Amino acid sequence: MADKNEKMKARLARGFGDRSADDIRATERMIEKIKAVYDLYGFEPVEQPLIEYTDALGKFLPDLDRPNEGVFSFQDDDEQWLSLRYDLTAPLARYVAENFERLPKPFRSYRAGWVFRNEKPGPGRFRQFMQFDADTVGTPGVAADAEMTMMMADVMEALGIKRGDYVIRVNNRKVLDGVLEAIGLGGDDNAGRRLTVLRAIDKLDKFGPEGVKLLLGKGRWDGGVEGEGDFTKGAELDDAAIAKVLAYVETGEIEDNQGVLELREIEALVRAAGYGEDRIKIDPSVVRGLEYYTGPVYEAELLAEIPNEDGKIVRFGSVGGGGRYDGLVSRFRGEPVPATGFSIGVSRLMTALKNLGKLDTADVVAPVVVLVMDRDTESLGRYQKMVGDLRRDGIRAEMYLGGAGMKAQMKYADRRGSPCVVIQGGDERASGEVQIKDLIEGARLSAQITDNEAWREGRPAQVSVPEADLVATIHCILAAQAQEPQA
Amino acid sequence: MADKNEKMKARLARGFGDRSADDIRATERMIEKIKAVYDLYGFEPVEQPLIEYTDALGKFLPDLDRPNEGVFSFQDDDEQWLSLRYDLTAPLARYVAENFERLPKPFRSYRAGWVFRNEKPGPGRFRQFMQFDADTVGTPGVAADAEMTMMMADVMEALGIKRGDYVIRVNNRKVLDGVLEAIGLGGDDNAGRRLTVLRAIDKLDKFGPEGVKLLLGKGRWDGGVEGEGDFTKGAELDDAAIAKVLAYVETGEIEDNQGVLELREIEALVRAAGYGEDRIKIDPSVVRGLEYYTGPVYEAELLAEIPNEDGKIVRFGSVGGGGRYDGLVSRFRGEPVPATGFSIGVSRLMTALKNLGKLDTADVVAPVVVLVMDRDTESLGRYQKMVGDLRRDGIRAEMYLGGAGMKAQMKYADRRGSPCVVIQGGDERASGEVQIKDLIEGARLSAQITDNEAWREGRPAQVSVPEADLVATIHCILAAQAQEPQA
Repeated sequence: MADKNEKMKARLARGFGDRSADDIRATERMIEKIKAVYDLYGFEPVEQPLIEYTDALGKFLPDLDRPNEGVFSFQDDDEQWLSLRYDLTAPLARYVAENFERLPKPFRSYRAGWVFRNEKPGPGRFRQFMQFDADTVGTPGVAADAEMTMMMADVMEALGIKRGDYVIRVNNRKVLDGVLEAIGLGGDDNAGRRLTVLRAIDKLDKFGPEGVKLLLGKGRWDGGVEGEGDFTKGAELDDAAIAKVLAYVETGEIEDNQGVLELREIEALVRAAGYGEDRIKIDPSVVRGLEYYTGPVYEAELLAEIPNEDGKIVRFGSVGGGGRYDGLVSRFRGEPVPATGFSIGVSRLMTALKNLGKLDTADVVAPVVVLVMDRDTESLGRYQKMVGDLRRDGIRAEMYLGGAGMKAQMKYADRRGSPCVVIQGGDERASGEVQIKDLIEGARLSAQITDNEAWREGRPAQVSVPEADLVATIHCILAAQAQEPQA
Repeated sequence: MADKNEKMKARLARGFGDRSADDIRATERMIEKIKAVYDLYGFEPVEQPLIEYTDALGKFLPDLDRPNEGVFSFQDDDEQWLSLRYDLTAPLARYVAENFERLPKPFRSYRAGWVFRNEKPGPGRFRQFMQFDADTVGTPGVAADAEMTMMMADVMEALGIKRGDYVIRVNNRKVLDGVLEAIGLGGDDNAGRRLTVLRAIDKLDKFGPEGVKLLLGKGRWDGGVEGEGDFTKGAELDDAAIAKVLAYVETGEIEDNQGVLELREIEALVRAAGYGEDRIKIDPSVVRGLEYYTGPVYEAELLAEIPNEDGKIVRFGSVGGGGRYDGLVSRFRGEPVPATGFSIGVSRLMTALKNLGKLDTADVVAPVVVLVMDRDTESLGRYQKMVGDLRRDGIRAEMYLGGAGMKAQMKYADRRGSPCVVIQGGDERASGEVQIKDLIEGARLSAQITDNEAWREGRPAQVSVPEADLVATIHCILAAQAQEPQA
């Protein structure tokens, strides 16, 4: 436990983030659009809890070398280990296996939710983030995989990403397995090395063929030259094996096998449904970094060239992907339960949309603030009634609840981005009026307008109206503000 | 770690639950409605992560006797302790303290999210559940508390709960503190006993005055008689003190103090805004079971009498509540930061709405299923195109992806609750037609209808139409189904 001084310091835990109103609203809209596509495809929402027994997740941790790291775990009072979920796939596999008899099969479902990684946090690397998955469990046919790729393509366009700015790339682990077998990496004993090779191939976009070559061999320094940055240990293949892998990755050439036949079927299906090569493309360099894929793998890549954090123009890259994982449900059951599905990285996709200018940013109008000129209970009651009237008419409104004077109140309204404030002191009250100050117009108008033109013509920054006209007048002001371009 | 056999068993962790499509959709709609009220009141969404440093939460665990229990905690690699949040209030306090300078004050915000309790799970008692909170930070005036009670009342009606079926009950901890001081329980040393007394009062609804009397004295057996059920230790007050507490709780009589004055102001404000005693009521038995409240406390109670799990008709009771917590943000800062807010128990409220028949249950139409009569790639492509055409027109649709025959496909469509299925075998294809089977009408019609009336007149359970009319015909069927009462 921390000492007493430490206790009183307000600080976000390392690797976690707070979310702003804009962020939350943009995410909600994005999720709504994705959900609409999944719904159209006949998928249904189903959610699992954030905590599962560790053994239900354990076998499928991303890093085989450290089976008990990477996840947040704790021991229950009955000694069983619990973990925060690492992804949404392993909990779904548990769910389907546990409820197998009563579910329609194939079982088509989707879920959005937080997942957690117990990793060292870094810039832009969070330990809690949101994924949005769709899965079809219970069918071996690649028509299900083909459907997933089409659904991903439709999601991209539903989010406003233009055709040509994205592509869904498809490959097959069985094809890769053929290559790996040819270089002597078949069998259970080589699972770890196979994964290292797959991850090396996965870096083709990032490091180019030279970088991949290093990762297939002795290893690679992050800085690109020896001694610079961290060193990533390579797969230690010999030169002949490296050449074979690179040849496949760069040309896609390989003799026919089951994997190639499946890819051809996927291609035929998506083309028949009208998805051209500009949307869905067979690509031998796609591997997906997870151990558990057993067949087709696919990923959604943004082709748009976007400035990265260093201002360098780069392809944004993958915003989601998935594949066939025939072993994940089966291990809970005594029978084969084939499955396929993908995951969208919600936060990452949101960053991409922001950079593309396609983010549906909040157009929510801030609340009207009724200022508090008199602080006796009776006056407060009167202000409270005004906000009540505004709200009943659908206008966001609040009475100022702070303790300070006029200046602080105006500053507050300004900080909130309020469209206008309502003012009623003793004088206005005596004449049955309220003053309404248009803060948007007020900011725009400079000192030159000083005459008293009528409201509808000149739209002055401040009007005085009978109390009974409060709601109607504010509707007018909001309508006028909505018509002019935002400041 | 569990042994090898254990590993392959699919089981939900103890105290956690999966969520069905109906459950998820109903929750979403409920949250939308609550959010609309919070928005109208000028509150903005802001969210904190699910994990915080334990010391930021630690002081405010509900059970003072076991400061390190009740929360799921784990140690980070830098030795600091992290915890899953226990409620949404402590993380908000951390957030406001950390971002104090840049926030508008008063700071009005809301958030819905999962919270976790590391407690022994029981029937209906979950270790993960959803809360939906609203808070105003930075104002000492009880106008903020008054607003909270009005907002809760508006939320109840926005959810369809009729006036008279709910009431927002309000009290003030300062009033209670006066009573506690009068019986010698003032001061820091008595914090634990004060909480025991408050929790005893909180049980008035559940156990009646006799039960509360036991809890204020030696203690109470859960079964109601000695030796039956678990024993809850009492506050060990003497008879005179017990009488004083009960007198206050039952009659509300107490000499004027700051707390009473605040309650009168709250009452005046809500009445001025048009909220009568049928909606918001001062009630001396409200205490709220948390240590950190410092002023007004309030709760939303459902008055409707609903059958409980044993079939007994009971008042449903509290579905949310809150109060003023002036110490929670201040402890992070060198200055007073008063605050007030409440929390709605989303799952509990949903149960209540379900029992009241007010739950907005899913009216989502299940997908049309295109059956797979031929399994060659070309035919699959053709079926795939049909679902694509339906989806483009906004109709949920899917191609059957399972492996089995006609019977299995019809059973699947039935299990999904599909409105209709589309069938095209070789014969239909040769004549450029598709068959559409109306499953809702099919279920309704019995064997008696055998003639071939035209579709629009007789609405037979099955029609054959030109392939070009597929989408239009299904629109007709869905419209007809929407007009008849659900089976």
